[in-house]
Amino acid sequence: MKEIEKLYDRIIQRVNINLRELEFDVNPYVQKLIPFVQMVKFYAFYGISPHHPLNFQFRYSNLAGSYFLGRCKVTNSLLYKSDIRGDELKKKGDLFQYQDYEVPVSDNEEIDIQDSLLIKTLVHNYSHDPETLEKFFITDTIAMNYANIHGSPSNGSFLGVFATVDLTTIRDCVIGNFSYVQAGEISHLHLAPGTIWVRNPGIFNFFYQHPIDKLNDYIYFTAGTPPQGLFMDFIEDRKEAFQRVFDMVHIEHNVPVPNNASLDRYAVTKGQTHIGENVLVAQRAFLQNAWLGKGANAQENCFIINSRLEGFNVTAHGAKICEAHLGKNVFVGFNSFLRGRPDNRLTIGDDTIVMPHTIIDSREPLAIPAEHLVWGMIKDQNDLKTNSMSIEAFSALDESISIGGMFFEGSGARFISAFKDRINHILEANGAFFNGSDRKGHAQKNQNISFNTIQPYPEGMRKGLFPTIIIEP
Amino acid sequence: MKEIEKLYDRIIQRVNINLRELEFDVNPYVQKLIPFVQMVKFYAFYGISPHHPLNFQFRYSNLAGSYFLGRCKVTNSLLYKSDIRGDELKKKGDLFQYQDYEVPVSDNEEIDIQDSLLIKTLVHNYSHDPETLEKFFITDTIAMNYANIHGSPSNGSFLGVFATVDLTTIRDCVIGNFSYVQAGEISHLHLAPGTIWVRNPGIFNFFYQHPIDKLNDYIYFTAGTPPQGLFMDFIEDRKEAFQRVFDMVHIEHNVPVPNNASLDRYAVTKGQTHIGENVLVAQRAFLQNAWLGKGANAQENCFIINSRLEGFNVTAHGAKICEAHLGKNVFVGFNSFLRGRPDNRLTIGDDTIVMPHTIIDSREPLAIPAEHLVWGMIKDQNDLKTNSMSIEAFSALDESISIGGMFFEGSGARFISAFKDRINHILEANGAFFNGSDRKGHAQKNQNISFNTIQPYPEGMRKGLFPTIIIEP
Repeated sequence: MKEIEKLYDRIIQRVNINLRELEFDVNPYVQKLIPFVQMVKFYAFYGISPHHPLNFQFRYSNLAGSYFLGRCKVTNSLLYKSDIRGDELKKKGDLFQYQDYEVPVSDNEEIDIQDSLLIKTLVHNYSHDPETLEKFFITDTIAMNYANIHGSPSNGSFLGVFATVDLTTIRDCVIGNFSYVQAGEISHLHLAPGTIWVRNPGIFNFFYQHPIDKLNDYIYFTAGTPPQGLFMDFIEDRKEAFQRVFDMVHIEHNVPVPNNASLDRYAVTKGQTHIGENVLVAQRAFLQNAWLGKGANAQENCFIINSRLEGFNVTAHGAKICEAHLGKNVFVGFNSFLRGRPDNRLTIGDDTIVMPHTIIDSREPLAIPAEHLVWGMIKDQNDLKTNSMSIEAFSALDESISIGGMFFEGSGARFISAFKDRINHILEANGAFFNGSDRKGHAQKNQNISFNTIQPYPEGMRKGLFPTIIIEP
Repeated sequence: MKEIEKLYDRIIQRVNINLRELEFDVNPYVQKLIPFVQMVKFYAFYGISPHHPLNFQFRYSNLAGSYFLGRCKVTNSLLYKSDIRGDELKKKGDLFQYQDYEVPVSDNEEIDIQDSLLIKTLVHNYSHDPETLEKFFITDTIAMNYANIHGSPSNGSFLGVFATVDLTTIRDCVIGNFSYVQAGEISHLHLAPGTIWVRNPGIFNFFYQHPIDKLNDYIYFTAGTPPQGLFMDFIEDRKEAFQRVFDMVHIEHNVPVPNNASLDRYAVTKGQTHIGENVLVAQRAFLQNAWLGKGANAQENCFIINSRLEGFNVTAHGAKICEAHLGKNVFVGFNSFLRGRPDNRLTIGDDTIVMPHTIIDSREPLAIPAEHLVWGMIKDQNDLKTNSMSIEAFSALDESISIGGMFFEGSGARFISAFKDRINHILEANGAFFNGSDRKGHAQKNQNISFNTIQPYPEGMRKGLFPTIIIEP
């Protein structure tokens, strides 16, 4: 057997051993999902810039189509078209604030991926676990298409398609398709598909369950067949536009970019697209007739189509916005799907927070008011009533409440302020507040990155495996 | 001052110290010859294949536009569009035959380039020095445009434009423009431009001096100005065709290639070009209306234009052939320039040996007979008489002789047999004799190489320097 096939089996076995208590067998989900020919076909690439501590170490792995920025070690792993963005990793000497602790960071942090299979997965940010400040580990883990592993060390876990773990250390867990979890630290849990769970132990707990029958239209993935549904079709239909971007060594976008903004060379822009000041457009973002006002950002794997975003908007990893008009400071969380129609556009007022993994898909005109919190699945005006609340009202919550499929307990004020602080941090990190000299962020720092391509052995026993590659300053 | 400028100065100083006895100052030759902007602009690339032991180590260097295949270490050096082809390096356990010695090779050989500046230089083959079997070193050396360092360890030396050192260890030497030396081991020598010197101590000695006034039309390079002359114009005129080849990640040549032949993805093909069986076309080769018969090879930096080569032809590194018809087994040595005219084509009969650095440039029809040895500068029928001899007659030489600008002493038979053995080895190594199962060479082994691109820091103090890169199996 070829080495790459051995590696595939090795990873599956290790994950299964970790998940034995949950009696979850990953085998039928991943077997033959990526034909080996695909794993040999695509080059991987890594970025070099003086703004990010450099250290890449790739050993005995396949990295087809994957993107690396920052410090990252990959060993005995298969990373297929994944995006490992380590440009926010902690640096030696930083102080990490955790509740009353102020923990010094003793070494430059690195992302350490071992014995794992990641498919089109986004890995970003830094380890939020105060126990492992210097190492953002992903070990014995399988993550499926468009999963997000965000600030979340992971061991022995399986993430379904479009699943997101956010600021949460997971051990021996199964995270269902399109589930979102932000819960600090969890282990030996199996989350059903479409679960939205945001918890700060002792302070608040937000829980929502997408109606599974409706969710299946958007994303459906079960043992033995590839993922299917509207989300997969949506991405598939726009795949071709990325091909040119990867075929050319140098690429010129035909969109004007202000000198304080950045448009990644691996993004796609089509039609009449406008990039405002301090805007960040990340790699694998897709913009078509998209108007991005000052300080907006379009993150990895997001799609913004026939839409106008007034400014200081966060469009998080994997979010999709079509036929919509978003006011200022609107936040759209991970993997959310917001679709208006050309003749029934969706509008969202200023300062509204669209929670991660929200689906708003309306055939009638829908106007989401300003300063609201929105979650779950919204197909019409009625759904909106049970799936949103004004930020003011939500902030006033101080005991348990249940509306529609949502359950909340604890401090609404703390929940809202946690969200707002985070949105502010995201805008700051992305350079939205750059004033010409101070408050630089990714929009300014990522303008000039050198990209290098790497490829596997083209034939022989090691066909498909990349040689050992070490890149240091 | 930027780091790359410091490095430039450091190399110049080290070479000058080595050349102090010759009172040769390299400064005016190389200062400002490559604008730094050029050194930041181009990516470098290296090939990965299971057929070549892998080990690349790049440290504190600029490698703009350079190509690497096989094991190579580059430290504190500037390699500009150079070609380091280490696919014939000795392997651990090989036995190296040198006269009566049979020396075991104790480690995989590597090319080790330190404190050197190479501009469009080709480095190939392996160290022929029995004193340094495991290390093909190039240290404190500057080599100018289209120099060839072929099987020749070099320390403290300067090679002019189109200079070739072949199977010769050089120490503290200056090799003039368009000079060719194959002399075993030399030190503290300054060779005038256009010197052709082939020596096997005690056995034979061949010496030719190109007429300097005529040579200056072809290549002229002196302190303070860039290289100029017909050779430079010739290459410049065809530079654009290479641009597309480097701009595309994947490239498809529109020329049929038999499955036992290989056409490098970094070669250029134009017009009606034919690739025969077992043919090898190396990277940066330029073919335009070129007909290559079975077992022919077109090596790096060669140009074959409007010409037919019947088969088993060697067109060595940097050779140029225009409007010509070459019979079978014709050998054309390094950097030779063979030009017929559309209405006065050049013909060369079977089994003829065109020595390295020969210029045949005739405005009248010129037919070089079969089985001849040809050297020096030939502009017409008269020159041909004084610059060629039948191989039979040359083999009969056994004392000193002087014809035209050529002087020979020693055994003509040994001289001819050394050449013939070498030609045979080159064809063998390139896969010309592949029979479908045995006698594989580069034409078969180099068909499927993965190429990776690497780039320097795009800004900051290290702008233009590549990060440390280590690639191992």
